[in-house]
Amino acid sequence: MPGSRPFVSLATDFGAAYTGICAGVVYSIAPAATVLVLSDEITPYAVAEGAMLLRQALPYLPVGVHVGIVDPGVGTRRRPVAVETGRGDVLVGPDNGLLLPAAEALGGAVRAHLLENPAYRLPGVSASFHGRDVFSPAAAHLATGVDVADLGAPAEPVPLDVPAPVIVGGAAGEAALTAPILYTDRFGSLILNAGPGDLDTAFGPLKHGTPLELSHPGRAGRPNRITFEATFGDVAPGEALLWVDSSGQLGLAVNQGSAADRFGLREPSAVTLRLAG
Amino acid sequence: MPGSRPFVSLATDFGAAYTGICAGVVYSIAPAATVLVLSDEITPYAVAEGAMLLRQALPYLPVGVHVGIVDPGVGTRRRPVAVETGRGDVLVGPDNGLLLPAAEALGGAVRAHLLENPAYRLPGVSASFHGRDVFSPAAAHLATGVDVADLGAPAEPVPLDVPAPVIVGGAAGEAALTAPILYTDRFGSLILNAGPGDLDTAFGPLKHGTPLELSHPGRAGRPNRITFEATFGDVAPGEALLWVDSSGQLGLAVNQGSAADRFGLREPSAVTLRLAG
Amino acid sequence: MPGSRPFVSLATDFGAAYTGICAGVVYSIAPAATVLVLSDEITPYAVAEGAMLLRQALPYLPVGVHVGIVDPGVGTRRRPVAVETGRGDVLVGPDNGLLLPAAEALGGAVRAHLLENPAYRLPGVSASFHGRDVFSPAAAHLATGVDVADLGAPAEPVPLDVPAPVIVGGAAGEAALTAPILYTDRFGSLILNAGPGDLDTAFGPLKHGTPLELSHPGRAGRPNRITFEATFGDVAPGEALLWVDSSGQLGLAVNQGSAADRFGLREPSAVTLRLAG
Repeated sequence: MPGSRPFVSLATDFGAAYTGICAGVVYSIAPAATVLVLSDEITPYAVAEGAMLLRQALPYLPVGVHVGIVDPGVGTRRRPVAVETGRGDVLVGPDNGLLLPAAEALGGAVRAHLLENPAYRLPGVSASFHGRDVFSPAAAHLATGVDVADLGAPAEPVPLDVPAPVIVGGAAGEAALTAPILYTDRFGSLILNAGPGDLDTAFGPLKHGTPLELSHPGRAGRPNRITFEATFGDVAPGEALLWVDSSGQLGLAVNQGSAADRFGLREPSAVTLRLAG
Repeated sequence: MPGSRPFVSLATDFGAAYTGICAGVVYSIAPAATVLVLSDEITPYAVAEGAMLLRQALPYLPVGVHVGIVDPGVGTRRRPVAVETGRGDVLVGPDNGLLLPAAEALGGAVRAHLLENPAYRLPGVSASFHGRDVFSPAAAHLATGVDVADLGAPAEPVPLDVPAPVIVGGAAGEAALTAPILYTDRFGSLILNAGPGDLDTAFGPLKHGTPLELSHPGRAGRPNRITFEATFGDVAPGEALLWVDSSGQLGLAVNQGSAADRFGLREPSAVTLRLAG
Repeated sequence: MPGSRPFVSLATDFGAAYTGICAGVVYSIAPAATVLVLSDEITPYAVAEGAMLLRQALPYLPVGVHVGIVDPGVGTRRRPVAVETGRGDVLVGPDNGLLLPAAEALGGAVRAHLLENPAYRLPGVSASFHGRDVFSPAAAHLATGVDVADLGAPAEPVPLDVPAPVIVGGAAGEAALTAPILYTDRFGSLILNAGPGDLDTAFGPLKHGTPLELSHPGRAGRPNRITFEATFGDVAPGEALLWVDSSGQLGLAVNQGSAADRFGLREPSAVTLRLAG
């Protein structure tokens, strides 16, 4: 009976081994669980990248308990938290903004509680490995049926702190969209904190194939020319493009190459797009 | 009852996170499945490397549904396909040659169908993430019992396009085997598109310990001297060897080192082997 | 009934694909097993790193069959072995010291047997992939209920060969602790073969915040100044610290950075710590 197997996912910046230990803790407490390592490759300490991954990924996973750990503040006063979503998931991790964008994508945060109850931690919590000692045990106990409210006091989770895109209106050659780079993906594509709606607002509806100028605020030099396309394969290998990625965000890519290398850019820099003259 | 748990494997060039999303899609549709990430580390866009991995690996996996994704043509006209094998597996992926060598190793391709039926795709297929929207849903539905023929029209999958080894006969010092490098493995070993039979044809039966000269067509300089051995441990650390790898192909390796670094080579270059004088 | 699902873990230096093949072999023989890839990212050939990972990790995993493979001697005379622990686990891997520290952490090695019985190997054992042909099949058969003693003759496994820390007593400014670097973790932290007890023996009880001098035996130059802290977050980003890692060993780290890069060090070098003047 599949429904009797609770689902737990793990997404961390730990690499394989420490993530494997977390999975082992979950299996030890909840042996009937299905455990998926969603990612063990988030860039270390990159909270925004992790938040965008969880927001993009979790709607495609079964309803379950989802652990997210990108935690530059481990061992300090930042609080561990569990957030229940409208869809019925519980998100578990540090209260540093990592979890809330995903909660929004899963029907919103319904309630949140701190991970305080020692019954749902490992005995002897270490200073540096809350993934093993705090987050994974809480997730496993939730998977076995513990209620979120039994974990600790109610909490109001902090939102993710990310700069908004800036749109400057004007004549065709002067309208501009400036957006921060959120993260660089494995292929070297640069994912922006802006969506197709921002592009529309800045330039009106854009056809695929439209040429654009890409410049970098605060850096001299001639702008790069790219085109707005539906997909990588619409440009020749080695050519750059702007596209809407599979999570619905604008991204800069090079077909069969790396946009990060091509443009010498990565987060948290920003880029400015204009219509090519 | 184990037999009631269908088996699904995933091999991609996506890295952990996007592969994890694919696994999540499979679990969402087929919650009773056992899902194995066979690899999320295929070199991006390296179709031949992926094809050789699937050919080597799948005979060791349970009969099941095996998704392979190395897809430089995503979003273009290349077609998504499912290939049923003589052993009873179904291989799912892009129709770019990736799947057929593995199908041959699993009893041959019995029938193949395109992934066209919208009932077995996610609603709203994206331009760039067919792993999530097309391949994984098809695999999951196959795992729950959908017939390959229900996915779409019959298809004739395209074969993998790989150069053959070239054997030049002659006296002992002149016979030569030239073979393309198929891929570089994680240890820096260079796997060739040639097998022990090609070695026999070129040089007659070779004893372990036989010295060989390794040269690079089109590159000047003195050939490297290596020996033909059964295993890495038969040469001192840092020494190079030719050996038959665990998939039955010839490979160039350095014991506890990297042949790619030693020789400054990688795919798609070719190498030439001769008996040492 | 969860108890009916045997638990198998895999920790290797193979990367994803070859580890995935091992998991496939386990599922083929023991389809009801829960298989966890604990790590596929051990540094190639780094036996001490693998041994420390297994020692740290396995106590957090369910009782089960745990395969560890870091095997520079594959294909030579080193023997494959299975070690039963006091907790009831069976550890499977090469007899090169990799498994014994973990066995100690799991209640000690109760008995050990060589992997000799052809009934519990794949037919046609290759020279270079014992993970697939010897270790994984043995583990899978153990998971289905085969007794350790049925695998082969009793054996006395070899211990791990690691240099001990050296403590030099003396006045406050002269006391010194010299310890070898065991391995470098994913974040670039340097894990030492020394624990908090060694620190106490050398310097007496140390308060968090105590400044220390870090030097490198055999290398000239001014010592680096670091502080002893409870956790990364106790120093500013970019600052170095000595801390007790989650496995109970001393480590050198840089908050949100890499100690390996900062100090230009890695295993098997040693470092010397003194109280700062």
